[in-house]
Amino acid sequence: MTKLVFIRHGQSEWNLENLFTGWVDVDLSEKGVEEAKEAGRKIKEAGLQFDQAYTSVLTRAIKTLHYALEESGQLWIPETKTWRLNERHYGALQGKNKAKAAEKYGDEQVHIWRRSYDVLPPLLSADDEGSAAQDRRYADLDPRAIPGGENLKVTLERVIPFWEDEIAPKLLDGKNVIIAAHGNSLRALTKYIEGISDADIMGVEMATGQPVVYDLDEKLNIVNKTKL
Amino acid sequence: MTKLVFIRHGQSEWNLENLFTGWVDVDLSEKGVEEAKEAGRKIKEAGLQFDQAYTSVLTRAIKTLHYALEESGQLWIPETKTWRLNERHYGALQGKNKAKAAEKYGDEQVHIWRRSYDVLPPLLSADDEGSAAQDRRYADLDPRAIPGGENLKVTLERVIPFWEDEIAPKLLDGKNVIIAAHGNSLRALTKYIEGISDADIMGVEMATGQPVVYDLDEKLNIVNKTKL
Repeated sequence: MTKLVFIRHGQSEWNLENLFTGWVDVDLSEKGVEEAKEAGRKIKEAGLQFDQAYTSVLTRAIKTLHYALEESGQLWIPETKTWRLNERHYGALQGKNKAKAAEKYGDEQVHIWRRSYDVLPPLLSADDEGSAAQDRRYADLDPRAIPGGENLKVTLERVIPFWEDEIAPKLLDGKNVIIAAHGNSLRALTKYIEGISDADIMGVEMATGQPVVYDLDEKLNIVNKTKL
Repeated sequence: MTKLVFIRHGQSEWNLENLFTGWVDVDLSEKGVEEAKEAGRKIKEAGLQFDQAYTSVLTRAIKTLHYALEESGQLWIPETKTWRLNERHYGALQGKNKAKAAEKYGDEQVHIWRRSYDVLPPLLSADDEGSAAQDRRYADLDPRAIPGGENLKVTLERVIPFWEDEIAPKLLDGKNVIIAAHGNSLRALTKYIEGISDADIMGVEMATGQPVVYDLDEKLNIVNKTKL
């Protein structure tokens, strides 16, 4: 039996300001730092010991992982960062206020962008200010793989190859794994491992900073799921 | 031309208390945290951009790396932790007060343990309390490779294989590398790349939290060395 833990990053500065964030590299708020440390204390209390950590290339998830590992006395475990665990890319909505976007485009349209499984947001082009194509951290990525905007479907399609190639083999090898990531990359993983439908997944919410613990059998079936 | 940066971890809680530390996983002091952040600010000012980070499996070096990367806006770069970059193992002296050790064993003996290149300290056995053999982070290591105590010569012999196998290939590939580690593991690397003699290396001191920047040519010869 292996353990798999998901942790969504703590509150970020833009969560606070009600902005669409996506791939913008926003820091944790003070509350977010506290949430991450508290997650670490819960992990320690639960006696969870990890062999491998995964996170995105976004600071708020990386710091959440580091605080949680440090508080639980295992900052020394191997850690792999990947763009594939990044938040859903919110396209041209990134940096926009959610309330103002609703005024501009209408409540219904914004609701569709936020809650539909397969509708794309307005896209950013590679030349646009704020495009990931101009960010050094994606310099080794095929420019065709850099999104201009994603829905959950597209997010899932780029998360799952990393699950298949990196995470699942570790679990199959009996290693305990922690993944610190984002609302939508974790939603994608949750959908995949729990077999949730396209229609139902958008209603699944993950609390910031709350570790979700899966016990998996040797075929990676879920035997138990708890929230700390 | 590639950049190689060494950074010795900031002040630890045991530096403050004048204890032999070695592989004991002591945290940074408040001053140590500040030193690490200041190193990050200097790295940012100098415009240094890294492709890969290396550190030990000891919290004080890992946290120094994280603070330095965060302050310089590059917490997202890949990071590899290895026991091979650990501090010199101080054997049975670990946890002992340096002044009290001098009272017990004599100034001269303690000076020899601290400053000779190839004299081993009193050793810990695998059964002794505090032996690394009982620490989960070394569980995947051949027990024969877990030291009971090291001098700088032995430290160098376990650091250099990692340099040869992991770090040097990255530099030869044109990647800029940062290594956050310890007084003696960095002394070993310094000896190796600068070609310093056994007699002279023990006199080489590295300031805590001060980045040392090497410019290397395509054969990894040192073209320039500066301290930030």
